Amino acid sequence: MVVSLSRRGDVEPFHAMDVLAEANRLKALGVPVISMAVGQPSDPAPTLVREAAARALQDGRIGYTDALGTATLRKAIAAHYGEHYGIDVPPARIAVTTGSSAAFNLAFLAMFDPGDRVAIAAPGYPAYRNIMKALGLDVVEIELEGAAYLNAAHLESAHREKPLKGVLFASPANPTGAVVPPEELAALVAMAENLGISVISDEIYHRLAYSGPDTTALVHSNDVTVINSFSKYYCMTGWRIGWMVLPEKLVRPVERIQQSLYISAPELSQIAASEAFKATIELEAVKARYAWNRELLMRRLPEIGFALAAPMDGAFYAFCDVSRLTNDSMEFARRMLAEAHVAATPGRDFDTLAGHRFMRLSYAGSHDDMVEAVARIERWLK
Amino acid sequence: MVVSLSRRGDVEPFHAMDVLAEANRLKALGVPVISMAVGQPSDPAPTLVREAAARALQDGRIGYTDALGTATLRKAIAAHYGEHYGIDVPPARIAVTTGSSAAFNLAFLAMFDPGDRVAIAAPGYPAYRNIMKALGLDVVEIELEGAAYLNAAHLESAHREKPLKGVLFASPANPTGAVVPPEELAALVAMAENLGISVISDEIYHRLAYSGPDTTALVHSNDVTVINSFSKYYCMTGWRIGWMVLPEKLVRPVERIQQSLYISAPELSQIAASEAFKATIELEAVKARYAWNRELLMRRLPEIGFALAAPMDGAFYAFCDVSRLTNDSMEFARRMLAEAHVAATPGRDFDTLAGHRFMRLSYAGSHDDMVEAVARIERWLK
Repeated sequence: MVVSLSRRGDVEPFHAMDVLAEANRLKALGVPVISMAVGQPSDPAPTLVREAAARALQDGRIGYTDALGTATLRKAIAAHYGEHYGIDVPPARIAVTTGSSAAFNLAFLAMFDPGDRVAIAAPGYPAYRNIMKALGLDVVEIELEGAAYLNAAHLESAHREKPLKGVLFASPANPTGAVVPPEELAALVAMAENLGISVISDEIYHRLAYSGPDTTALVHSNDVTVINSFSKYYCMTGWRIGWMVLPEKLVRPVERIQQSLYISAPELSQIAASEAFKATIELEAVKARYAWNRELLMRRLPEIGFALAAPMDGAFYAFCDVSRLTNDSMEFARRMLAEAHVAATPGRDFDTLAGHRFMRLSYAGSHDDMVEAVARIERWLK
Repeated sequence: MVVSLSRRGDVEPFHAMDVLAEANRLKALGVPVISMAVGQPSDPAPTLVREAAARALQDGRIGYTDALGTATLRKAIAAHYGEHYGIDVPPARIAVTTGSSAAFNLAFLAMFDPGDRVAIAAPGYPAYRNIMKALGLDVVEIELEGAAYLNAAHLESAHREKPLKGVLFASPANPTGAVVPPEELAALVAMAENLGISVISDEIYHRLAYSGPDTTALVHSNDVTVINSFSKYYCMTGWRIGWMVLPEKLVRPVERIQQSLYISAPELSQIAASEAFKATIELEAVKARYAWNRELLMRRLPEIGFALAAPMDGAFYAFCDVSRLTNDSMEFARRMLAEAHVAATPGRDFDTLAGHRFMRLSYAGSHDDMVEAVARIERWLK
């Protein structure tokens, strides 16, 4: 029988996930792998969150919810914008999604047609590029060439070359941890507005900046699409639960697409996430450990030949220039996992052009693991 | 600021979900709505399943898994093919997905490019059509015109008109409950093979046939893509957990797309679902109630003017011809919900051409609810 294989399905692997699969395979064989490959907290979800899930399990049925999410969670998220940012966002503009993964897919489908030019920064989160390509978008990767973040001038220059339909940026950013300063964010959004470019702001690493308060793009316009998630700060990766704040015009299109493509986000995760905003004391303790890990890595990584290639102002990643050690970070990552039993992500995930010179290390694990990982890499390199 | 609105995002609503949202709104106001709109069991997931989830919550972190799913769940699903169908399927060909919703999206992305012609039956599950359209496929809806299911002759005739790249069919089917007899399934798969058409077999309503054992399309070829889920027989709708059995050639493409579009299915749901195949006694008791509900509706619905338009051999739906009562089933469904407080789905979801004459009622609720719903509709019609 014929098995159809599409051209668009031929997307790049998400190499971090391939590294995760290999690390899991080794762990199952008893190899004591330390994982710095995937951006995931080693802590469980907060106690309140897990207790809410446990109660729901006892109560009974876990079913479909409204496509846009439960009223309770949408209200809790809307209230968070008041509490955390001091801005007013109505629950009606919140869409609860199956992680930020679903939010990106929904945003791209609702906003762009095949052939539309949408800009992202390189280096950047690989799923942006991979989802866009699978959906037929013309991905415009703006090489930052050492700049910490995408700015208004980058956007203008890419648009002058050939008009852009949209732009997607993240602050704090993955893999660099770079935070766009408030005045630069304002300029970037204003430039997009002037040029008629739609904006998607990925705010998944909010509450994980080490240098100052968060600024949401929503302070500059109600017409930006904001994407966020409970995966990172709230330690809920495997629950697959995130959200969008939508311009009013996009609410119904996103609802319609969600109805058919996802039905709804997992109900148990929605019930649990409704408690997450109350767990700040527990979560700030987790963040304090990231800060401790960060101090360690900022000091130790350069000593072992991993030059810091980015400011590490937010998120929980060290993005390192390893060109003193290798010109092929894919092979380097494979060997480091096989021989030093430390899993990290090759730069190619984030930058197809220059990625061979870089590695990303997640420091969302325990402090002991970070100490041990650096020691292992150091021994292995000798 | 400009808000982009794509053309492809302009998909039809999934009307059952709109009805659900309205029913939930009424319930929140205290209106005692009986829901027969959405295909979801009123029972909770089996005890073993919920206990496994509760243990995992206590143990700690719920994280990302391998993109294709945990080794435990993939093995349990593979073993199910041996136990239930007597065929050998290796775990390596199983992809765990975020419900069958994700499985459809992954199959379409991995197998088809924009413009490819893919056939489905009308009436049929609306998300097929809506997802395909959002992904730019040329959806070929084969009107069954009273036939119970899609057969080899339908497929041949549609292909002669203009060549098809793929075909997707379901047995038992939604909304009709029709089961494709084994010899007809064999002929359908053989016809697809002869014509060079790729096959997707939706087996989500397996174990919910009232007339005989299930036949999986996998008995005819290892090159069909089978989609299934824990939502229906296993009472796990809101857990968003399903699976695919893939031709070998499709495993890596699906893994790559899953990595970027979904990362992985929810881990808690994967842990819980690993126990689902052990819960047969509990689940057969649930199925016995569906059979009881089915007997009631087969007798009572025709009496109140809802003519049965399909055999009800499987799944948990009554698909009714209501043309004696209305020529606009959308408006009819709205009024029935607002006035009789019974939620059901207008036929337009399943058939854009003839759907205005039909309604679908799900009988996966309690028996008391079914009795009360029929009584309310009867009173309301008088």
